[in-house]
Parts: sequence; C-alpha cells; structure tokens
Amino acid sequence: MAASVSLFGYWASPFTLRIKWALKLKGIQYEYIEEDLPNKSPLLLQYNPVHKKIPVLVHEGKPLAESLVIMEYIDEVWKESPLLPQDPYGRAKARFWSNFADDKCVPSVMRTFVAEGEDKEKAAEEAREHLKTLESGLEGKQLFGGEKINFVDVAVGWIGIWARIVEKIADVNLIDAKTMPLLDAWFAKFLELPTIKECVPPWDKLLEHNRGFRNILTYAAT
Amino acid sequence: MAASVSLFGYWASPFTLRIKWALKLKGIQYEYIEEDLPNKSPLLLQYNPVHKKIPVLVHEGKPLAESLVIMEYIDEVWKESPLLPQDPYGRAKARFWSNFADDKCVPSVMRTFVAEGEDKEKAAEEAREHLKTLESGLEGKQLFGGEKINFVDVAVGWIGIWARIVEKIADVNLIDAKTMPLLDAWFAKFLELPTIKECVPPWDKLLEHNRGFRNILTYAAT
Repeated sequence: MAASVSLFGYWASPFTLRIKWALKLKGIQYEYIEEDLPNKSPLLLQYNPVHKKIPVLVHEGKPLAESLVIMEYIDEVWKESPLLPQDPYGRAKARFWSNFADDKCVPSVMRTFVAEGEDKEKAAEEAREHLKTLESGLEGKQLFGGEKINFVDVAVGWIGIWARIVEKIADVNLIDAKTMPLLDAWFAKFLELPTIKECVPPWDKLLEHNRGFRNILTYAAT
Repeated sequence: MAASVSLFGYWASPFTLRIKWALKLKGIQYEYIEEDLPNKSPLLLQYNPVHKKIPVLVHEGKPLAESLVIMEYIDEVWKESPLLPQDPYGRAKARFWSNFADDKCVPSVMRTFVAEGEDKEKAAEEAREHLKTLESGLEGKQLFGGEKINFVDVAVGWIGIWARIVEKIADVNLIDAKTMPLLDAWFAKFLELPTIKECVPPWDKLLEHNRGFRNILTYAAT
C-alpha cells in the first residue's frame, strides 16, 4: 500500500524545507520523493498541473500544491502542536507576515543574489528594508510564536539560512546583529532548535549548490 | 462609540469590493471610510504601516490588512454563511485558486491594461492562458462553491468586471463564451446575484475612472 502521506520535493528548496519542518513538528510519517528538477517526474506534473513545481504533498491520494497552502492543510488535518494561533486575529497576523516574507523579502533577496554592481547594491538595500519590516513582527518576542514555534517561524525561518548564503556568494550584508538584532537572534535561536536543525541540508553542500545555481541564473539573465 | 467594524477602502478598488462582498454576505454592519488615495489618511497609514494600502478592516480597534487575509478573518469571526468549505482539502483548494488569481491572473490582466502593440498582445495571450487555467477550477460547477457562493467566488469574481473594462479600453479579447464558456457563464451568474450586484460601482463610472487610471499608468511607465 502506498504511504498515506507523500512529499515531492527537492533537497535544496526552501519551500520543501518548510513542509519538512511542518511534518516533523507534527510528528507525521511520510514518504519523501526527491525530484530531479530539470526532468520532473510525470507524477509531479500530474499532481501539480498548474504550477508544475515542488513541493507537492499527497495525502490519501489527494494532491496539494503551494507551500503555504500545504502548511495550512497540515495544520488543519493534524491538530496536535498547532502552528497557527487559535484566535482569529493571531491567525490573521501569522498569515500576514508569512505572505509579507514571500511577497517582499524573497524577491528582493533573490534579486540581490543574481544582480551585479549598482543593481546588486540597490536590491540589497531593498532587501534590508523588507527584512527590517519583517523584524517589526517580532517585537518583544524570541520567536514569532512567542515561547513556542508557530506558523511564521516555520514559513519564514529558512531566510536565516538563505540570507547567509546570498551574503557569502554575492558579497553583501543583509542581516547583522547591530542593525537587526531581533531578526538576527531569532534566526540563531530558531535554526538551532534540534527538530529544525536536523532537517537542514549541510551548509557546505548548500553553498556549493547555490554557487552553481547563481551561475545558471546569471547566465540565463544575460 | 466608534463602530465595531470599519472598512477603509476606495470605491474603484477591486480589493475593497472583495471585502464589501464578504461583509454583505455575512450580514455585518460596518462603517465605511472612503480614502483619497493620493492623500491617504493618517489613520490608514497608522493601521497599515507596512503596505500603506487599502483595504484595511478595523474590528474592535484591531487593524487588519491584505484582502485575502481579511476575508479569512471575517470567515473565522462570523461563522454564519461560511465562505471557506468545512473540509481541509476543500479549504486548501479554495486558497489555491484565490492565490492563483492574485499571483497569475491579476498581473497579466494588468500588463494587458497598460501595454501597447506587441507587448499588449503578448500580455493578453498570457492573461488568456491564466484565465483558462482558472476556469479549470470550475469544472462541473456553476460557482466555485457549487450551488452556493464560496471564498473563491468572492475573492475572484471581480475579474469578471475588470476584464471587460480592460477589453474595452485596451481593445483586446480576454474572455468569451466560445473559448472560456465556464468562466464566462460563471461571471454572468455570479455578478447578477442581487447581493453581489448591489455592491458594484456603476459601469460607466468605473470605465471612465479606469480610462483616466490607464493614462496615469502609461504616463508613469514612459
């Protein structure tokens, strides 16, 4: 019999990592299928015909796409260790910050990753502004969930790894303890939690992979 | 005493219209504050410091921004006439299609609105592809909610009005009964429902407003 829960992902994808974290925190057993992105499997394309992208979660034969939508689904089906707060206003704020990170922080960090010269500096400036705004969501808290991990921590925490990769490869500064002390401390705390840490790919492997990824992207852009 | 629910909006904004529809369908009384977009009120900027945009809903003094987030909040607080399906998979699908419309249909319809010549044709082609994909979410149904209006109908139905405006002003074809019969019939059915219709601004006024809006956008783009 096929596993009740399957995840189609890619090891270096932060959107896959989100789902791995959510499944781990909920204690859900699942089958993991690693996709070869240049040659996506027919099953992935069948399960996500609209976006043709990972991650895809299949639960009892029903496919789900889009990582934030998958996270909400996981939280609604497996109610133990809730990720979203229980009160509607807290839930709205968690959705707001998760969307903000995806809509504003991710594109600007990504532009910083691929741009050169003046464009890179401009993109980095914009990324820092958005990350500073994201930090305002942490005011008075160590984690977005306060004492416990919540939806925003799981949705956004990967930026703490990828920002460091962009800083290293593109030779820019994005987050430091002086200008964004709360965000810097949050990444450090969240990413050191054992359940979180054990899902993260090795730093050297990620760095090497992203050096190659940047070469492909900058080549494609010229 | 201030009203328990206030909506800061703009009469010609489809994102404001979404919230008006949701409040109307739930039978929620509210105070409406029309914003002058070039001179936004200090209260709006205070309530939505991150995006500085309408719509903003204020409930018992607590501000909420981002129209899809506001819609989920409304649905969670006022449980009568639910907008999201009750089962987690149906909820995930509703979120998927609402996000798809915002992420894919809206930007391509918008590009069609402002572009000229070959760029306009390219944007219209892309918009038609995305709208056709959106249509696949309607298969076998008159409304996204089946017999009853649901979250997707309220989130996406405005495209039925704005697509016609873009067709008229930019002189392109986006949706017709031959190529997208389900989507065409859905817009016709949904937009004629009395509760829905009474919130929609008059066609002539919207058309005139958008002619002016396009002039501003195309001027800004050159």
